[in-house]
Amino acid sequence: MTPIRIGLLGIGTVGGGTWDVLTRNREEITRRVGRPLVITRVADLNTELATSVTGGQADVTNDAYSVTRDPDVDIVIELIGGYGIARDLVLDAIANGKHVVTANKALLATHGNEIFAAAQEQGVVVAYEAAVGGGIPIIKALREGLVANRIEWIAGIINGTTNFILSEMRDRGVDFQVALDDAQARGYAEADPTFDIEGIDAAHKITLMAAMAFGVPVSLDDCYVEGITKIEQTDIRYAERLGYRLKLMGLTRRRDEGIELRVHPCLVPGSRLIANVEGVMNAVLVEADAVGQTLYYGAGAGSQPTASAVIADLVDVARLITADPGHRVPHLGFQPDRMGDTPILPMDDVQSGYYLRLRLADRPGVLADVTRILADEEVSIDAALQQEPGEAEDQADFVVLTHITTERAVQSAIQRISQLESCEAPVVMLRVERLG
Amino acid sequence: MTPIRIGLLGIGTVGGGTWDVLTRNREEITRRVGRPLVITRVADLNTELATSVTGGQADVTNDAYSVTRDPDVDIVIELIGGYGIARDLVLDAIANGKHVVTANKALLATHGNEIFAAAQEQGVVVAYEAAVGGGIPIIKALREGLVANRIEWIAGIINGTTNFILSEMRDRGVDFQVALDDAQARGYAEADPTFDIEGIDAAHKITLMAAMAFGVPVSLDDCYVEGITKIEQTDIRYAERLGYRLKLMGLTRRRDEGIELRVHPCLVPGSRLIANVEGVMNAVLVEADAVGQTLYYGAGAGSQPTASAVIADLVDVARLITADPGHRVPHLGFQPDRMGDTPILPMDDVQSGYYLRLRLADRPGVLADVTRILADEEVSIDAALQQEPGEAEDQADFVVLTHITTERAVQSAIQRISQLESCEAPVVMLRVERLG
Repeated sequence: MTPIRIGLLGIGTVGGGTWDVLTRNREEITRRVGRPLVITRVADLNTELATSVTGGQADVTNDAYSVTRDPDVDIVIELIGGYGIARDLVLDAIANGKHVVTANKALLATHGNEIFAAAQEQGVVVAYEAAVGGGIPIIKALREGLVANRIEWIAGIINGTTNFILSEMRDRGVDFQVALDDAQARGYAEADPTFDIEGIDAAHKITLMAAMAFGVPVSLDDCYVEGITKIEQTDIRYAERLGYRLKLMGLTRRRDEGIELRVHPCLVPGSRLIANVEGVMNAVLVEADAVGQTLYYGAGAGSQPTASAVIADLVDVARLITADPGHRVPHLGFQPDRMGDTPILPMDDVQSGYYLRLRLADRPGVLADVTRILADEEVSIDAALQQEPGEAEDQADFVVLTHITTERAVQSAIQRISQLESCEAPVVMLRVERLG
Repeated sequence: MTPIRIGLLGIGTVGGGTWDVLTRNREEITRRVGRPLVITRVADLNTELATSVTGGQADVTNDAYSVTRDPDVDIVIELIGGYGIARDLVLDAIANGKHVVTANKALLATHGNEIFAAAQEQGVVVAYEAAVGGGIPIIKALREGLVANRIEWIAGIINGTTNFILSEMRDRGVDFQVALDDAQARGYAEADPTFDIEGIDAAHKITLMAAMAFGVPVSLDDCYVEGITKIEQTDIRYAERLGYRLKLMGLTRRRDEGIELRVHPCLVPGSRLIANVEGVMNAVLVEADAVGQTLYYGAGAGSQPTASAVIADLVDVARLITADPGHRVPHLGFQPDRMGDTPILPMDDVQSGYYLRLRLADRPGVLADVTRILADEEVSIDAALQQEPGEAEDQADFVVLTHITTERAVQSAIQRISQLESCEAPVVMLRVERLG
């Protein structure tokens, strides 16, 4: 049977992994697919590296456009990353009638609407399993496996770097900076870790999943993003005593008024399976009306896990090539002419439980002031802890877990509590998702 | 766009759920698929029930063959269950050129090779996502999501009834019979629970997954099957003290010599995510060469979760109808002409860790006898516990966890230990899977 001819743009970590896995498992993959998948062209600025990796078995060039425009290429894999040249190349490949496979979440979260529309118009597919959750087939689960369901919400640990840092802080009792240094030493964090630790990478991924789950356009600008740089050891320990784990979660939820879309550190009950996902591993928990809760777990990054997803996409596209374009899985899971216009809610309207840590003067009436303010704002208390801090004799930590309320109410309560004379330090606020 | 016309055989628990979900989520599903899926014909011996569920919106009959032979039906859903009439109807539907969707693991584990060959010959699809893991899209993950990988092993909690019973035994300290009664009272176990508690249902599922993972024919007869009826509270408690949970697992593993295929109760390290899957929930852990470990978790049974999988299959088949038959996902994940002949290993050749509970006379030299026999048989000890049993003063429980060894060696050691004069009760043996 005719081989599928593939052009690879970028043969770095993931590109090299893709080459390796495709070569090593050629026989097993061909047994499954029934026709060979062959990378015939490779474009990389480092042509020496590309030649060494491919061992002369592919035509190497430093001109990526010669690949996107090659009439003998059926599918283009984009593994360059970033928004600039990658966007131009993906659009050029589409314009030349190529199917595209990409792992580029930043590109799709930023320019996905434009790229998917262009692909739709050209009748080609842009596949992106590797863009979310590394090797976990979560895009396939959301778009195909759960197709019967009305999806209610998604909660994901979708950034391995930050999950590793939080696991280290909990296991070893170290502070954020120590855990970050460790992550960098082990190669789990980049030299500039901003995208990971500030939650931006997770925002790209949860934004793509929200679009697929609810049939709305990709709306990165409406995603609330908060990273883990301000997480203190104290709060991890208090959370533990209350039976919770602290995780950086991507969350999106359908409500009548609109869609919640947010990334922030959050307390999760320790008894939930997802609370026990540690280290660099990723997991996505989906609540849907027919199936209930399902969870998908695996390596969220790395050369070969990501290659696993890239190749799964290659195979899907290879199978789709002979299918009627009208009956393919739509890019965002819903037909382009049936996308909804449900708004993404502003953060003030989000509903969540909250963890508040207050440092209060230890004298009569102070707790009464605080609880009155919470009651005024209709923030009701689920559990509380009181504890003397280490040094100061006349201060106490008062930790509160609230029932579900709105961000607006909690922010208003925090503002009022902060103005109390007895409030001795800025209020620490973390969100709690019970995932019930 | 032309609706897909569906004939439904059996409108009991899962059939009724399929009707309900398809009706309730019609709008959402059509937004995804782009064309309506309509159940036009329903066959059930209880036509009154069928008419009441469908509210007159489908043509109801008690003659299932009038559906499998209806030229106006595109896809037949078989939800009758069992091996008899269900087999005849599925083969008749295939002979009449219909695509088939089924949740019937017993049928496919028993007659899968025949059914898939017939479908292949007719150019139609038999889809069976609902046959394993209820609503968890695990077949899709194995056949498509992990297509790039050489799968090494699969370990699954794939029977909710037995997982519920073991969870109850652990949580509430009750014996097997009490937990089974409770499961029956809650509707988690059938009046005749044999298929579940003897491990047969799990054997059906792991046999299907082994075929898909390794590209071998469906080989139910070669599957070793052991249920949970002999599990004692004592062993659950000792396992807990050693840091393990006791689970009924379906296991299959590729080795150079052949394939291990087995269902039995087994100790799993408590720190593994899958050890924390409790109650009726299912989870499947897959180790594959590129992606590493991935885990898929969700409801393994129930009306609507199973319906979720049935409808996902309907959508896949609807999309495939316009695709070239040569490029569809093969029934067992591998092309029919590329199936392997790797043998399923006899249980004696299986490799595992072992938990042995020995009741020994409490006098000098006894432990030396036991450890010498273990050493003779090359069974090496990983951890041990010694404890006086409740009543007898001159006896002690000696609990051993072994390193990986063969079933043959352990069985031989057990036989020799049983013949010791100091061995006061039959040796209890459970297998240990560290899933590392």
